Amino acid sequence: VTEGRPVLLSDVERREALSALPGWIEADDGRTIRKRYTFKAFDGAFGFMTRVALAAERLDHHPEWSNVYNRVDVSLSTHSAGGITALDIRLAKKMESVAREIEG
Amino acid sequence: VTEGRPVLLSDVERREALSALPGWIEADDGRTIRKRYTFKAFDGAFGFMTRVALAAERLDHHPEWSNVYNRVDVSLSTHSAGGITALDIRLAKKMESVAREIEG
Repeated sequence: VTEGRPVLLSDVERREALSALPGWIEADDGRTIRKRYTFKAFDGAFGFMTRVALAAERLDHHPEWSNVYNRVDVSLSTHSAGGITALDIRLAKKMESVAREIEG
Repeated sequence: VTEGRPVLLSDVERREALSALPGWIEADDGRTIRKRYTFKAFDGAFGFMTRVALAAERLDHHPEWSNVYNRVDVSLSTHSAGGITALDIRLAKKMESVAREIEG
């Protein structure tokens, strides 16, 4: 799914993908998906960000995110496509698995 | 300066400290200082964040920050003191030196 130009998901595809991503919500008229992750302390939050940063480089697809101590707010979109593509879903799934491992 | 409870800087002390921190501005009625750092690409921005994260843990004093690709927006305040203390100035100075090294 990362070969070639990323293609916008249809409304149905996007909602189906989101239904498998607990806590993720649509924003910006379906052009962005977001989640707030909360960890025990800063090291959990920044450990999460570090592993996700490596995945983002590998995918060449990067989140918009902010961090305040133990909290990370993430927002994903594929700007070149004007909304959500398979790249966003892949990165969101990676975030879910990293967060699960950190939270233990 | 990190021993004991951090003490609010006076207006004069804060402005003197800021004058040695190019690009840093006051916000929130002098209770916060901010800067936007811009790097060549994501790896510069996240490399900066990683080194600053280690410094923040060492100081037990953490920034509020957000990242979009090559950009990092940082905001510092000592919430327990209700404004800017020597801790914020130390962390800001560390950010300056890390950014200088990354930008080379």
